[in-house]
Amino acid sequence: MDSNLIFPPIFHPFFLPSIPKHCSYDISMALKLYGYPRSGSTACVITCLLEKQVEFELIHVDLFSGQHKSPDFLAKHPFGLVPVLEDGEFTIFETRAITEYVCKKYAANGTEDLLCSDDLRRSALVRTWVEVESNYFHPAMSPIIFQSFVAPLQGMSPDRKVIDESLEKLVKVLDIYEARLQETKYLAGESYSLADLHHLPPMFYFLRIEGMQAKIFDQRSRLKAWWEDVSSRAAFKKVVEGMKLEN
Amino acid sequence: MDSNLIFPPIFHPFFLPSIPKHCSYDISMALKLYGYPRSGSTACVITCLLEKQVEFELIHVDLFSGQHKSPDFLAKHPFGLVPVLEDGEFTIFETRAITEYVCKKYAANGTEDLLCSDDLRRSALVRTWVEVESNYFHPAMSPIIFQSFVAPLQGMSPDRKVIDESLEKLVKVLDIYEARLQETKYLAGESYSLADLHHLPPMFYFLRIEGMQAKIFDQRSRLKAWWEDVSSRAAFKKVVEGMKLEN
Repeated sequence: MDSNLIFPPIFHPFFLPSIPKHCSYDISMALKLYGYPRSGSTACVITCLLEKQVEFELIHVDLFSGQHKSPDFLAKHPFGLVPVLEDGEFTIFETRAITEYVCKKYAANGTEDLLCSDDLRRSALVRTWVEVESNYFHPAMSPIIFQSFVAPLQGMSPDRKVIDESLEKLVKVLDIYEARLQETKYLAGESYSLADLHHLPPMFYFLRIEGMQAKIFDQRSRLKAWWEDVSSRAAFKKVVEGMKLEN
Repeated sequence: MDSNLIFPPIFHPFFLPSIPKHCSYDISMALKLYGYPRSGSTACVITCLLEKQVEFELIHVDLFSGQHKSPDFLAKHPFGLVPVLEDGEFTIFETRAITEYVCKKYAANGTEDLLCSDDLRRSALVRTWVEVESNYFHPAMSPIIFQSFVAPLQGMSPDRKVIDESLEKLVKVLDIYEARLQETKYLAGESYSLADLHHLPPMFYFLRIEGMQAKIFDQRSRLKAWWEDVSSRAAFKKVVEGMKLEN
């Protein structure tokens, strides 16, 4: 499921200082990304677009007024979630489908082939670890972030039981990551790929929760080294400017 | 999440009469599929292999003795689920990654390009609707099948509340499918693709539950026509032989 995590601006309007709102000379030709940059899913796609050095127009979807459930938006994404990418007349939704489309269309752009598309087995490993993120990492991570950040904004107390149960699942997943990262530098092999990229926004939020850095890194040196590497990439550092929470 | 639905042999040992256990002349070169064919995930991969007319050896994993959690199996799939595909020295897990690998490697085989790989936009639609199956269809469908088939085998009564809540979610998803199938013959466009294929095993089981055919087809003529089409393909009809439950 698209994470659709909602992180509203708390003390200042959202802005991405390094991404001009209109960053194409001929704006009619630019990709249009409909999203909310503090949602993990939108942040993933922005990270990918910046990695591939693709010009795009960011169109803010106001989740708080329910804009994503309006008929106009449902015509773009029938399940009513962000993000959605428009490339001229072509509309595509679902985060992992969007990032793959961007990587295929702009294969020659940027410093990395994020799909490892010239090697059938490497590309299969990218696909496998994108599935791992979707099927194991995300279901464990998502409730922790929801309870820690979103529930308080909705006037609810974080449900400690949900957090603890999810954390228990998450550390088991991360034990497998630690073992994997002892074999290969990145999740899908020796180069950075979409499989790594999709972890960045949720990990970023998670690590801002008190005590979590020690909880997952103290016994997992490879995971820690991987995180320091992948989170320090220029594209993601730009995206982080738009994701910071006040704390 | 891989559905990992378990459908044990009830009255007879599992067999796939149309798929010889060893179907390669040089068995050492054949793909090895580790799985349990009554699990929806394994059945998906078998359907794909048959569509692509690929020789493979089916290696039964005994889920009831916990073989999938043994150290040997965990070395193949660190999360301990079926299926796993071995292609010589290369091992790949996660159903949707496996089917994509098979389709890429054997692109010229079979009657359909299940990835629509010669068209960037069509291939993006395949990827989108594979994500839809994973993120919306599967989470609604899986609890219904678990409660209806697996829970009774584990001595539990089906939880009617879980079934009803999941069914409520499922019909909303299927309303979106109905609208989609009014626009295009198949989920990702005008030809059959992996996006359709991944729905076959869970739909097959679901439709064997009393009353479900009327529940979802009576008001959804396009969905019904799509199901009659995709479920009648030769590859899936062969797989069904191994999936039948006694009822």
